[in-house]
Amino acid sequence: MAEGKTGNGAAAGAMARAVIAGERRALAQAITLIESTRIDDRGKAEKLVEALLPQSGKSIRLGISGSPGVGKSTFIEAFGLHLLNHGHKLAVLAVDPSSPLSGGSILGDKTRMEELARDERAFIRPSPSGGTLGGVARRTREAMLACEAAGFDVVIIETVGVGQSEIAVADMVDMFMLLLSPGGGDDLQGIKRGIVEIADTIVVTKRDGEFFNAASQMAADYRGALAFLRPPTEGWTVPVLTCSAAKRTGMEQIWSTVQKHHVTVETSGALARKRAAQNEAWLWSEVREGLIERFRDHADVAATLDQTEAAVKSGALAPTAAARKLLDRFAKS
Amino acid sequence: MAEGKTGNGAAAGAMARAVIAGERRALAQAITLIESTRIDDRGKAEKLVEALLPQSGKSIRLGISGSPGVGKSTFIEAFGLHLLNHGHKLAVLAVDPSSPLSGGSILGDKTRMEELARDERAFIRPSPSGGTLGGVARRTREAMLACEAAGFDVVIIETVGVGQSEIAVADMVDMFMLLLSPGGGDDLQGIKRGIVEIADTIVVTKRDGEFFNAASQMAADYRGALAFLRPPTEGWTVPVLTCSAAKRTGMEQIWSTVQKHHVTVETSGALARKRAAQNEAWLWSEVREGLIERFRDHADVAATLDQTEAAVKSGALAPTAAARKLLDRFAKS
Repeated sequence: MAEGKTGNGAAAGAMARAVIAGERRALAQAITLIESTRIDDRGKAEKLVEALLPQSGKSIRLGISGSPGVGKSTFIEAFGLHLLNHGHKLAVLAVDPSSPLSGGSILGDKTRMEELARDERAFIRPSPSGGTLGGVARRTREAMLACEAAGFDVVIIETVGVGQSEIAVADMVDMFMLLLSPGGGDDLQGIKRGIVEIADTIVVTKRDGEFFNAASQMAADYRGALAFLRPPTEGWTVPVLTCSAAKRTGMEQIWSTVQKHHVTVETSGALARKRAAQNEAWLWSEVREGLIERFRDHADVAATLDQTEAAVKSGALAPTAAARKLLDRFAKS
Repeated sequence: MAEGKTGNGAAAGAMARAVIAGERRALAQAITLIESTRIDDRGKAEKLVEALLPQSGKSIRLGISGSPGVGKSTFIEAFGLHLLNHGHKLAVLAVDPSSPLSGGSILGDKTRMEELARDERAFIRPSPSGGTLGGVARRTREAMLACEAAGFDVVIIETVGVGQSEIAVADMVDMFMLLLSPGGGDDLQGIKRGIVEIADTIVVTKRDGEFFNAASQMAADYRGALAFLRPPTEGWTVPVLTCSAAKRTGMEQIWSTVQKHHVTVETSGALARKRAAQNEAWLWSEVREGLIERFRDHADVAATLDQTEAAVKSGALAPTAAARKLLDRFAKS
């Protein structure tokens, strides 16, 4: 046991050194270890993350979301190449709990982000497959730390515009960017409640060809609608930008907006506060998840849980009393 | 111990019968018991709620929120008297975790809701004092069940328009109503993010005197803004109504809207689903709170928690590893 732990520690240490030295293969292996759901990999992954932690935290963490069809991968390719041309190193990770076991959803995107994927200065990783949103989020956070330790100074975490994954991504990045496209069901009526509200920047894509005017109009509409909302960061007015990924226009303005946001929140101290709060929330989310997992797995609880839940839902059993009885079963052992 | 439990059971049973018989004094005592934070009252309160449960669930549960100054108590008095005049029995409870230990915040409101408070057909209860939002919410839910068992067929749960208490209230009622007033900082810019989105109905108050036109304009503005949001209930378009509590106008329309909503969600099955989901969420919220409480109280955890949290916040310790270590300490007891 002690030997195993030492072995873990040594192997994790070697892997961490290779990651920090910037070896792409080591980074890919490190993330595979982080993503492993095997119980016996967790200890090693923990040691790895511990070893990488001092070298992490130095990137701009950018969340990007948008409905399917918004042209997310095309945008990330164009935007990413712009960053590389300006001397940056970019990692792209994904959060998509709906991705099938056989592979992440941006595996397809990766082949579409051809130019970016081929470039040595970029690192693209599909979403870890399977698992709960909480699990995927944790592994993505840790993969982000690994990318930072490997020297990537911009990390994009992308997610599809469905469900709660945007909230999970917003909770792990410095800035959250929402992509919208004209003619794609993203009119003001169709937007997902709660997502526009957490965006630090909105970018209307496809401002080219037949959509040129529609994109401009859409941006104007959203500027109007945003007047009804309070921006998520004090002292930061949410801009609505436009771009064409196909024509590679608008990238300069988007990148300068990201940088401006970064300087703003870094100077005001909001960034440090945000990251400290994110870390603390992450700790408690891990604790809560761990507690609930142990609770559900507890034999005496599991034996009666389904029946108790059904009785509570039907109104036959009071939730408070039911919870207390289950907690008593949990405590007795 | 067994005797104590039997004693509890008998006393709770007698109290429950008196509540169900409609004795106001018994209802007030029952809620005091429910609100008690004394450990040895919890068992009795649980038995009481169990005994009341079969008689509960038959009211229209209406959440009302609005910023301080919106005229909430004036509105509830006017609206409540309208209900009484139409043959209903009304209970008014409050959720306000900010209320001081010395008494609830609508204690003052109660004296202002003079006419309503004097009426036998109404029951007004200030917010339970002190405690966390979770604790206040639980006690308010149970007080609501007691009011229902006592024969009140409309229960209003009011809360102030600050913080997370609206979400807690929306999670325990059938319908959530947001009050807004012209000239009170409730213009579209100033609204709290996330609150307008959960409203099933919006009522603009003070449509009288100098504010008459402003109230109408405000309602029109909100109708426009709501077009950007998806209504919280499928098949229900969120209406924006106006009223004057001082002149007692608009009450008929507001009440018929509440009734229409009730019929809509009852017929579609949405109400049954909502209440079942609320009960289930309540159970799990109790379980989670109980688990976290036991976790925090655990000697081995408590001994290292502050230090661990600080290290995680500063980025010196990885949240996942920190959580695992704390959970291991918790399990070893």
